[in-house]
Amino acid sequence: MATTTAIDFRTLVLDQPLPLDSGRELAGVEVAYETFGELAADKSNAVLVFHALTGDQFVAGTNPVTGKPGWWERMVGPGKPIDTNRFHVICANVIGSCLGSTGPASMGPGGKPYAMDFPVITIRDMVRAQMAMLDALGIERLHAVVGGSMGGMQALSCAANFPERTDRVLAIATTARHSAQNIAFHEMGRQAIMADPNWQGGDYYDGEAPTKGLAVARMAAHITYLSEEGLTAKFGRRLQDREAKSFGFDADFQVESYLRYQGISFTDRFDANSYLYITRAMDYFDLAEEHGGLLADAFRGAKDTRFCLVSFDTDWLYTTADMREVVHALNAVAAPVSFVELSAPYGHDSFLLDVPALDRVVEGFLG
Amino acid sequence: MATTTAIDFRTLVLDQPLPLDSGRELAGVEVAYETFGELAADKSNAVLVFHALTGDQFVAGTNPVTGKPGWWERMVGPGKPIDTNRFHVICANVIGSCLGSTGPASMGPGGKPYAMDFPVITIRDMVRAQMAMLDALGIERLHAVVGGSMGGMQALSCAANFPERTDRVLAIATTARHSAQNIAFHEMGRQAIMADPNWQGGDYYDGEAPTKGLAVARMAAHITYLSEEGLTAKFGRRLQDREAKSFGFDADFQVESYLRYQGISFTDRFDANSYLYITRAMDYFDLAEEHGGLLADAFRGAKDTRFCLVSFDTDWLYTTADMREVVHALNAVAAPVSFVELSAPYGHDSFLLDVPALDRVVEGFLG
Repeated sequence: MATTTAIDFRTLVLDQPLPLDSGRELAGVEVAYETFGELAADKSNAVLVFHALTGDQFVAGTNPVTGKPGWWERMVGPGKPIDTNRFHVICANVIGSCLGSTGPASMGPGGKPYAMDFPVITIRDMVRAQMAMLDALGIERLHAVVGGSMGGMQALSCAANFPERTDRVLAIATTARHSAQNIAFHEMGRQAIMADPNWQGGDYYDGEAPTKGLAVARMAAHITYLSEEGLTAKFGRRLQDREAKSFGFDADFQVESYLRYQGISFTDRFDANSYLYITRAMDYFDLAEEHGGLLADAFRGAKDTRFCLVSFDTDWLYTTADMREVVHALNAVAAPVSFVELSAPYGHDSFLLDVPALDRVVEGFLG
Repeated sequence: MATTTAIDFRTLVLDQPLPLDSGRELAGVEVAYETFGELAADKSNAVLVFHALTGDQFVAGTNPVTGKPGWWERMVGPGKPIDTNRFHVICANVIGSCLGSTGPASMGPGGKPYAMDFPVITIRDMVRAQMAMLDALGIERLHAVVGGSMGGMQALSCAANFPERTDRVLAIATTARHSAQNIAFHEMGRQAIMADPNWQGGDYYDGEAPTKGLAVARMAAHITYLSEEGLTAKFGRRLQDREAKSFGFDADFQVESYLRYQGISFTDRFDANSYLYITRAMDYFDLAEEHGGLLADAFRGAKDTRFCLVSFDTDWLYTTADMREVVHALNAVAAPVSFVELSAPYGHDSFLLDVPALDRVVEGFLG
C-alpha cells in the first residue's frame, strides 16, 4: 500500500452521516471520484460507472497509482462507446475500498485506522454513498448507470433502491444474488487473509501487511475470473522459461508463474481489510431478499427505467442463468429490458477485455 | 498428524530401489496396503483400487485413522458392486502420501524426515511402486484396476505403462492430462501452504505444522469437487444457526461453516508436504506428453485391455470433454472401450457418493 499513500485523490466529504444497512451510520464519509467529459448545462448527460471488487475511480485516462491506463480505457473516452465527447462520466471509489474513499484503512474516530471496527457494509450502502455524492455534485438524475461484475450489482441495486435517479441501467456479467459457490470462493479468500499472522486481527497498519494471505486470496479469485478455455488458450501446459519440468516446486508452468505474479502484484495496490469488507458486501448481496423475497418486487419502482443486461457464455462466476433471473423479474414488472448473451472466450473478465460486440451494445444502449 | 502416528499400518518394503521419472531412485520404499476378500488359488481374482489425492488404503471396512467407514465402503464389500465375496481387492497408499507409505514425512537417509528432500514423484511413479508391491505379493496379473479422480489417472497410467498387468481398466471422473485450470487451483493451494510461516521450507516436523495454510488449500480444492448446483441445493444462502446476518465476519452462511470445517478437519489427517508432492504429481500428469505427444500412442500396448470410462455431467474439474479425449485415443488403437456420462448432481465428488447408475456400471464391467 506504500505506493498509494502519496497520491492526492480527488474527494468530497459527505455533509451528512451515511445510514447503513447494518443499522450503524458512518460520519464524515469521504468519496473519491473522477470525472471525464463536460457536464451539459442542463445536467442531462451524466453517466455513473460503478467499478468492480478491486477496481477504482480511474475508469479512463492514466491511473496515478499504477501508472497504467484506466481499467475501462477501451470503453470510456472521446469517441469510445461511452463517449466523453457526449457524456459526463463519473466514477467513484466504493466505500470500504482503499483508493481514497472511506474504508477500513481510513482514520477512525479514535485517531487510528478503523481496521475491523469499520462497519460491515452492503452493495446498497455503496450505492447510497454515491447517490449522496451526486447530491453534493448537484446531479439529480443520470442518463445512465453502468457497471460490470460488482459494478453491475451496484447498477441493479441503484435501479431497485433509487429508480428516480437514472433513465437507463446497463448491467454486465453480474447477478442479483451471490450463490453458495460465489460465497465459498470469497470465504476461502478471507480465510487465507485471516490465516496470515501479519493480519493481526486487522490491526496491521503500523506493521507488515498480510500480503501473503492477500496474494493467495487474489490467486483463487483470479482463477474464477477466467474460463477454462481461456486459460487453456493462453497457457495450456506450456512451461515457463525452461525446456523440461524441473521436478521441483518452482513455477514450471506458465500458468503458475502468471498466477504468482497476479497475487503478488495485487498486494501493492490493495488493502487486505478492504478485500474482506468488499467480498462480504458481495456475499450479502441478494436483491430479492432485500425486497421481501421476490426479485420482481425489487424492481417495482423501476418499470419506467430502461434496462440492458449482458452476460458472457464462458462466464462461470456470474452465469447467463443468473442473468436470466433478472430478466424474468424485469419482465414480471413490464420494465423495458433488452438482454444479450455474448460469446467471448475470456470468462468473467470478458467485460474488461476486447469484445467488440460489447462495445456495440454499450454504445447503442446509451443512445 | 498426531492421530496417525499411533496407527500400525500394514506395510511391505520393496526389496529393490524404485526408479523414478525424475531420474532419481528411492531406496527402502514402504508401501502400506489393505486387502479385502480372499485371493483365489489361481490368483485370477485380484482387483487393484487406486485412491484419490487425499485418499488412503482403507477403501472399505473401518478406517483406523478416522474411525469412520472406508472411503468407498458403498462400492467395495460383500455383495457390493466390487464384491469381496468374489474379488480379492487390494488398495495401497500412494508413495508421497502420509498413511504408511513412504513420503516426505518418512525418515530419510539422514535420520530425519525427508521433508522437501523427498524426490518429486509422478503418477507413473505411484503406479510403479504398486506394481512392485504386486510383485512382492506374487500377483502377476490383475482382473481389473479401478480408480476415480487421481485414482483414475493411475488406472490410465497403468494401462499405458503396464498393460500386461491387467485385464480390465475402469477409470472414473478423471483425465489424461491436467489442464491449466487444474494446475492453477493446485498452485494456489501450494502457495497457501508455503505462505504459512509454520511451513518453514517443509521442515516443520519438530514443531507446529502449517495447518492454516493446508486448511485454506483444502477449502479451495473442496469447492472444485462440488458442483454449483450441488452447493446451491445443499446450502444455498441459508444462514448458520442464526435468524439474520451478523454484519460481521463470523460464518453467517452454512456454506462458510461447512468449508471452514472441511479445511480444519482435513489437517488432522493429512500432511502438508504430502499435499504439495501429490498435487505436483497430478499437475505433471500428461499421458500424451509421456508417450511422445500423441495420446493414442500411450495406449498402443493396451489394445487387448478392456476399458470402461465414466464421467459425470456436473463434474467441472475433470469433464466429459476430458474423458472423450481418452475415448478417442482408445478408439484410435481399436481398444475395446465403453464410455458413459452419468447424470448426478454432486460434481466431481459424484464418484464417491450415492449414484446407483455408477454401481451398475462398475458391477457390470467387472463381470
